Amino acid sequence: MEQQIHMEYAATKKEKPNAADLQFGRVFTDHMFIMDYTEGKGWYDPRIIPYQPLSLDPAAIVFHYGQTVFEGLKAYVTKEGEARLFRPEKNMERLNRSNDRMCIPRLDETFALSAIKKLVGVDKDWIPTAPGTSLYIRPFVISTEPYLGVAPSKQYQFIVILSPVGAYYKEGINPVKIAVENEFVRAVKGGTGEAKTAGNYASSLKAQELVADKGYAQVLWLDGLEKKYIEEVGSMNVFFKIDGEVVTPALNGSILKGVTRNSVIKLLKHWGIPVTERRISMEEIHQAHLAGKLEEAFGAGTAAVISPIGELAWNENQMIVNDGVTGKIAKQLYDTLTGIQYGTEEDIFDWIVEVK
Amino acid sequence: MEQQIHMEYAATKKEKPNAADLQFGRVFTDHMFIMDYTEGKGWYDPRIIPYQPLSLDPAAIVFHYGQTVFEGLKAYVTKEGEARLFRPEKNMERLNRSNDRMCIPRLDETFALSAIKKLVGVDKDWIPTAPGTSLYIRPFVISTEPYLGVAPSKQYQFIVILSPVGAYYKEGINPVKIAVENEFVRAVKGGTGEAKTAGNYASSLKAQELVADKGYAQVLWLDGLEKKYIEEVGSMNVFFKIDGEVVTPALNGSILKGVTRNSVIKLLKHWGIPVTERRISMEEIHQAHLAGKLEEAFGAGTAAVISPIGELAWNENQMIVNDGVTGKIAKQLYDTLTGIQYGTEEDIFDWIVEVK
Ligand SMILES: Cc1ncc(COP(=O)(O)O)c(C=O)c1O
Ligand SMILES: Cc1ncc(COP(=O)(O)O)c(C=O)c1O
Repeated sequence: MEQQIHMEYAATKKEKPNAADLQFGRVFTDHMFIMDYTEGKGWYDPRIIPYQPLSLDPAAIVFHYGQTVFEGLKAYVTKEGEARLFRPEKNMERLNRSNDRMCIPRLDETFALSAIKKLVGVDKDWIPTAPGTSLYIRPFVISTEPYLGVAPSKQYQFIVILSPVGAYYKEGINPVKIAVENEFVRAVKGGTGEAKTAGNYASSLKAQELVADKGYAQVLWLDGLEKKYIEEVGSMNVFFKIDGEVVTPALNGSILKGVTRNSVIKLLKHWGIPVTERRISMEEIHQAHLAGKLEEAFGAGTAAVISPIGELAWNENQMIVNDGVTGKIAKQLYDTLTGIQYGTEEDIFDWIVEVK
Repeated sequence: MEQQIHMEYAATKKEKPNAADLQFGRVFTDHMFIMDYTEGKGWYDPRIIPYQPLSLDPAAIVFHYGQTVFEGLKAYVTKEGEARLFRPEKNMERLNRSNDRMCIPRLDETFALSAIKKLVGVDKDWIPTAPGTSLYIRPFVISTEPYLGVAPSKQYQFIVILSPVGAYYKEGINPVKIAVENEFVRAVKGGTGEAKTAGNYASSLKAQELVADKGYAQVLWLDGLEKKYIEEVGSMNVFFKIDGEVVTPALNGSILKGVTRNSVIKLLKHWGIPVTERRISMEEIHQAHLAGKLEEAFGAGTAAVISPIGELAWNENQMIVNDGVTGKIAKQLYDTLTGIQYGTEEDIFDWIVEVK
């Protein structure tokens, strides 16, 4: 099943952005990976080609019925100039779980990862070196069959693009303001919340637009059934430190199984800090805050790594967390995770995969 | 604000399919309509061009975050060779409501409709004439800005494509078997169920795939909160006749506001048949069936017009409706609606819009 990746180099190279100008997901490298699928034939013709537009029939299923999945991970470069990935096999695993939910054929995880490594290797000089910067990797699958019936596509493309990125939040590791969402719902049990698929993000835009106008960086989603229990933030899982214990919503089928979330739990356990995955109501957080026991709150995700929450707005309650400054645990997690990623901390859990 | 539509004719014409071979949404006509949007500039450059692939940056938001909406309506041709649309202004209205929910800029409804009419006029000889056939019209908006951040796109394309179609269900007006879905959820209050947007359909694929294996044409969705109340079928609203009264789920924010649904209600009222929009539990339908009072069940949507339900499977209950044959009301609605559409029945409600 091992397939040869065909290589076509870009004739001209694009200019690389200055480290200071780096945003998130606006600039793309010289090359991309692409591979086709046709029912009966399977996945075929893996190739690295110059970054270029896709040519798709206007009736392609992706435009109409959104049958698509994606992933997000990063490549980091060490002081010594070595490129590396952070737990990429977790992203490949999740990509296939998302594929299952969305009726998209599975990918060979080992092969997909080797393709990503090869692509990152080809565009290695695009990995920025300034602190906090990295090369964001976006693998995605789109349904390309030209057919207006609501049915799984018989044709797909698996594509990987790369984008040199600065920090996701302009605020960096500084605390952000988050608004708890009471009206709109992102995902519900039995829906697609656990899959990394387009529709979950499309449905989140409206709520985010409304709170952005009021100065909030993101919304905190509550469960779709009772609007009582905490789910996750925009593109991060969420953690709270209450009276010395760290808690995070359990994986209930409607939130994303974050790689950063899993890494945070592993680190906390390793440090002997109590951490529990369970159902958490917004009322509980509010009571903890009133009692002076809400010690920290932070989001965890690939893009921002750790994002402290300095203010949480819920109905008429404006809860200032940890005086609006970054908490001790959030800082320690951020330093350790980025330390492992950039190679300044020991990789005790064997999380790093080198790109040769 | 009236814009001139630029016209580029196809150099060669494609071969048209035989009426007998017509499927749904597999073949497209010679031309398409396309128009661009850029923030600050608005909608511009409306044009009819030869049907052709779209060229999009692989980072276009539609591929990743599914910010997109669509519509579906049909052009019919009368015995006299006149082309006509059925309540198209309703589709334009709904397109803009979907746009609002998905943070997509509104279209000028009058202009969009005139563009559709012009396109249908250009490809008029593609409207099939055999009974039950028509030209399916698919207007859609996709987000094209190359940006991997979760935020509304600053660039869009509004596109219209046309497809000559046979009956949506191979079974035609014959009753279909429908399975009530207990596990998966299509949409929930606060979500995007009321918008015609890609993610709603992507999330429905899995459930449909599972029941298709058991011989069911579609699933009947229940509410996402309690999984008790009836919502709609795949791409149809649903009606039941119980003890002489026709009932249909009320518009509750999570189901589509179907144009056919509205037309059915109007016709029933006109005929003096009692019709009520309200919350309907699956248990109520089951009890009515046990009591011998479930007289008819049918779906209503543009694609199939009226689709009688001959069997409804709910947990271990297989409910055969009206002995598995098309009911009187379903038949009367189908005949009247298609009669109005094809010009053999009087257009008493002024639903028809002629294409000059
Ligand atoms: C909805 C959502 N939740 C959580 C996360 C965090 O997941 P990860 O840590 O794997 O990046 C993401 C992705 O980045 C996300 O999109
Ligand atoms: C989910 C859903 N419900 C109902 C309908 C019926 O709507 P209409 O009668 O406007 O075609 C459709 C569309 O065709 C649909 O996609």
